[in-house]
Amino acid sequence: MNTASRGVVAKIVAGIESPSEQWITRARAHLDVLTKPLGSLGMLEDIAAQMVSIRRQDFAQPLQKAVYVFAADHGVTAEGVSAYPSEVTRQMVLNFLAEGAAINVLAKLHGVQMNIVDVGVDAHFDGLHGLLHCKVRRGTRNMLYEAAMSDAELAQALEVGSRLGAEAGAKGQSLLAVGEMGIGNTTAASAITSVLTRKPVQQVTGQGTGLDAGAQAHKRGIIEAVVQKYFPTVGIDSVPDPLEVLRCVGGLEIAAMTGLILGAARSGIAVVVDGFISTAAAASAFATEPRVRGYLFAGHQSEEPGHWVLLKYIGLKPILSLNMRLGEGTGAVLAMPIIESAMRLYNEMATFASAGVSEANL
Amino acid sequence: MNTASRGVVAKIVAGIESPSEQWITRARAHLDVLTKPLGSLGMLEDIAAQMVSIRRQDFAQPLQKAVYVFAADHGVTAEGVSAYPSEVTRQMVLNFLAEGAAINVLAKLHGVQMNIVDVGVDAHFDGLHGLLHCKVRRGTRNMLYEAAMSDAELAQALEVGSRLGAEAGAKGQSLLAVGEMGIGNTTAASAITSVLTRKPVQQVTGQGTGLDAGAQAHKRGIIEAVVQKYFPTVGIDSVPDPLEVLRCVGGLEIAAMTGLILGAARSGIAVVVDGFISTAAAASAFATEPRVRGYLFAGHQSEEPGHWVLLKYIGLKPILSLNMRLGEGTGAVLAMPIIESAMRLYNEMATFASAGVSEANL
Repeated sequence: MNTASRGVVAKIVAGIESPSEQWITRARAHLDVLTKPLGSLGMLEDIAAQMVSIRRQDFAQPLQKAVYVFAADHGVTAEGVSAYPSEVTRQMVLNFLAEGAAINVLAKLHGVQMNIVDVGVDAHFDGLHGLLHCKVRRGTRNMLYEAAMSDAELAQALEVGSRLGAEAGAKGQSLLAVGEMGIGNTTAASAITSVLTRKPVQQVTGQGTGLDAGAQAHKRGIIEAVVQKYFPTVGIDSVPDPLEVLRCVGGLEIAAMTGLILGAARSGIAVVVDGFISTAAAASAFATEPRVRGYLFAGHQSEEPGHWVLLKYIGLKPILSLNMRLGEGTGAVLAMPIIESAMRLYNEMATFASAGVSEANL
Repeated sequence: MNTASRGVVAKIVAGIESPSEQWITRARAHLDVLTKPLGSLGMLEDIAAQMVSIRRQDFAQPLQKAVYVFAADHGVTAEGVSAYPSEVTRQMVLNFLAEGAAINVLAKLHGVQMNIVDVGVDAHFDGLHGLLHCKVRRGTRNMLYEAAMSDAELAQALEVGSRLGAEAGAKGQSLLAVGEMGIGNTTAASAITSVLTRKPVQQVTGQGTGLDAGAQAHKRGIIEAVVQKYFPTVGIDSVPDPLEVLRCVGGLEIAAMTGLILGAARSGIAVVVDGFISTAAAASAFATEPRVRGYLFAGHQSEEPGHWVLLKYIGLKPILSLNMRLGEGTGAVLAMPIIESAMRLYNEMATFASAGVSEANL
């Protein structure tokens, strides 16, 4: 089953090593001699130690930051699961290219190179400048009636992402953010979350881009039907297959982000995940290969109720918590100055000895 | 009582206006037409609206950011309330000047102009380059036996801060961070917190720079004795006088930060407070004049247990929560890229109309 996609993933996963425990120990020892009370930089110390363990070196050079925003459409929008019409996916891609979206503003301010990837928008974008053209198909199939993708399509979407992850490594990029745009994709993310974490659909389904209570109940019903259709033994069958989950419920952008995370981990690059949807991709990557966890940072805690369930499932602690629910990679890029701060402190602070500062009496 | 300090404060407070409600309404309306789901930028929208209301204009120019780090010593360190010897205050000032401290690294990375102010370090700094020389006296008196300052000294410390706040306005600075360095100053901050908020000392006293349980109990005992000595009717007397609290327990850096916050508010400048100690200054300013609240941002939630008590007392929600407990203004400066992000999004994002993006169906 899923021979093509399984083949793609197996090749990448074989090359993923766990981040270095030795370098974590070394980083901790260095943090303890810097001119500050022991442990007083809190989570910044954890972030610095993790980055050092990923890179297996003390960082002398500045971080090279990039964000990859994957766009795709979802056949399930025919069921009325979103507050916005599905044409907004296409319109927002044009807004990204015109630099008018939230992610453009944040990427520019924080020095983050921006990549917009069409992996499955239901629009004719041929020849459009500034877009990475990687369309697998014009939107997924309606998961309520048939699997969102074929095995071949899933394989292709995974490869789009993993190739970009490998290329990022070749370009010297050292910190990636993943984000997405796809009307309907919280429906896909809720289905993935429910199946992978075995939580009831109700607990992991939220308002998306702004549904009212009635529309939310309708969306929940659709997701429950989908989960029942493809994964009737969830909670009985003990190991849901993450590739089969992606294939049945989508989306193409979630599969591509899964590929990017796997590819980046194989290249030894840190990835900051954004909100609910990109974290569903991270959870799919983690379910495929748990060693990716050491390469991941959670940019923020989003307002979507399924997000914390996924973060807990993977074992990630969010850096920011600003009640955002926008996507596009905005929460991930916003966490980058914090991660960069942690690395600069690690590299540039004086030690007690170098600064002639007395240590604690205790 | 406290004629001199009361005179200083009265003059500043008379010029403080509340931030503009009209501009908040106008900012909210603008946020709602930007290309994002309604409210999806969460706390960033609140931050942007507050900044617009403080400045009474849409921000076209970039923020001019500065941090003011006030250093002073505390006579109460003779009682063994800190994990570090009091000479560390002097040593850390030299570390600030040599650009080796955490705050130097963060200020440099985030484009924040750095000011180090000696308002009461127990050291001879005359002629030292790069330091703002505003020493009131070489450390406060030991509050366990006598009031930390005289009324004249308190007035002078408040004036140091308020003058810097006024000068910041004249220089065009639009976003200030306040921070401090002073061995022993969590003891002063805990005493202030207990008196102003009427919480038991136990609830608002933490480990400071890293005390063990025994040393923490000793510190708590000292603070309880101090509160009993100067404010025996706390909880009975319904309005503790914030200036009298500052005069009795100090410190000079807390009084100067109180002055800076009042002075900045009078100049219409936003101030980001840092952790427990600078928030004790903010609480003192707020207790003196509640209209300062609209000018304040809480950079982060520190690990000190008294900090959230103070934030709740003033009515501030922290931007970051990274388990930091370092001081120096580090948590405040680290929040500046978030505040700047909010303003840039407000100014630079496309609207639904300008980008040709469809609005929600609901």
